[in-house]
Amino acid sequence: MKDIPHLEVCFTPATFDSFGKPGAVVAVIDVLRASSAICAAFMNGAKELIPVGEIEEAREYKKQGYLVAAERDGFVLDFADFGNSPFNFTPERVKGKTIVYSTTNGTQAIRMAGKCHAVTVAAYINLSAVCEYLVSFNRDIILFCAGWKNRFSLEDTLLAGAMAEKILENPGFVTNCDSTMASLDLWSLAKPNLMGYIQKTAQKSRLQKNGLDDCIEYCHTIDITTIVPVLSDGKLIGKIK
Amino acid sequence: MKDIPHLEVCFTPATFDSFGKPGAVVAVIDVLRASSAICAAFMNGAKELIPVGEIEEAREYKKQGYLVAAERDGFVLDFADFGNSPFNFTPERVKGKTIVYSTTNGTQAIRMAGKCHAVTVAAYINLSAVCEYLVSFNRDIILFCAGWKNRFSLEDTLLAGAMAEKILENPGFVTNCDSTMASLDLWSLAKPNLMGYIQKTAQKSRLQKNGLDDCIEYCHTIDITTIVPVLSDGKLIGKIK
Repeated sequence: MKDIPHLEVCFTPATFDSFGKPGAVVAVIDVLRASSAICAAFMNGAKELIPVGEIEEAREYKKQGYLVAAERDGFVLDFADFGNSPFNFTPERVKGKTIVYSTTNGTQAIRMAGKCHAVTVAAYINLSAVCEYLVSFNRDIILFCAGWKNRFSLEDTLLAGAMAEKILENPGFVTNCDSTMASLDLWSLAKPNLMGYIQKTAQKSRLQKNGLDDCIEYCHTIDITTIVPVLSDGKLIGKIK
Repeated sequence: MKDIPHLEVCFTPATFDSFGKPGAVVAVIDVLRASSAICAAFMNGAKELIPVGEIEEAREYKKQGYLVAAERDGFVLDFADFGNSPFNFTPERVKGKTIVYSTTNGTQAIRMAGKCHAVTVAAYINLSAVCEYLVSFNRDIILFCAGWKNRFSLEDTLLAGAMAEKILENPGFVTNCDSTMASLDLWSLAKPNLMGYIQKTAQKSRLQKNGLDDCIEYCHTIDITTIVPVLSDGKLIGKIK
């Protein structure tokens, strides 16, 4: 008899290895802003996206003529074509292109997850589609919050809660994971007024301080697209559910 | 001008080093059951308690004639005098004694915190006293949840929320930490019916499965004692606030 698939939430890259589930399907969450930007890129026609952990690796790609999006702590790196706002990934810039992408937290998490059965990228803007995709495997699911420099991040946790709510509507899935319980409960508090709740997150303050908060509402808009980014041979491609 | 002290919550030992605050005062939280047991030990007259990370180190102490409390995954180790339930630390057993103590999560966290300015141990049973002690330093505070094998634990987080609520009543303290926000919100949900809420934690299920859940209500009883365990030269001693 096949085991019932379990849903778990991982709050930071620092704890991801302790899940020890190479057979799981993983959704990487970095709401502000990497996972939202990646979904926007595919929605706007990007051909593929190469997630890169280290700055030097991104710089090397730039020398080879690639289109490079790269930021650290919210700021565009000097050699990059543009940074981390989903508004940067316009059809004019990305349609049909391969994009090399390196961010403070999100792209490293995608690479860490690469050893698992399958990896996708989740945002509010593709919420229903990505949940449907995860469930379709009928395997253990890990919602992997990229967090902030190995710390817990509230906005990623809320999306994990929203996803857990949707995934657990499928009677084939169960959870007995404290971080899933916490995500569900925090989501239940935030859901009636998500934009109000988000005001208290540290990342909102960070982005606001640097004048980068124009995309926060967009990044919390549900189901703008049915695109599901999927990792294949170290590159993300966009699938339409 | 002195900086306003900040309150932060660390959810697991895996992320503790990313806080990078050697000047902070740290309270280690392992509600089920290490931190509750440690407070009970001092309430019942223990002289000092040596927190030990590794099993072999605990075994070595036993050979030297020490009273040893040691468990892994809830079970008493074969060479130990007793295990991890607060009910084991009776006055008859512990009064005036030095206890060597090694558990799955809590004692390692105490040792990790040892590099900070001061370290204490927090439980519901000493909630008010330990908060008062932490505030008295007028320094940054980290509430350090021992979690479960580097994973997030809901019962530790709820106590962190209860402590954060108390600490932030002092106008001299602020927070801009997402895990503190999450702890406060989860505590606000749990507070009206704490024992009901605790039913859904994974650790409650683990203890129940092994017939070790008799102490859960005790471990969630507020302010049984004003004892504050304090780390000094690698050993805990009990201070009365």
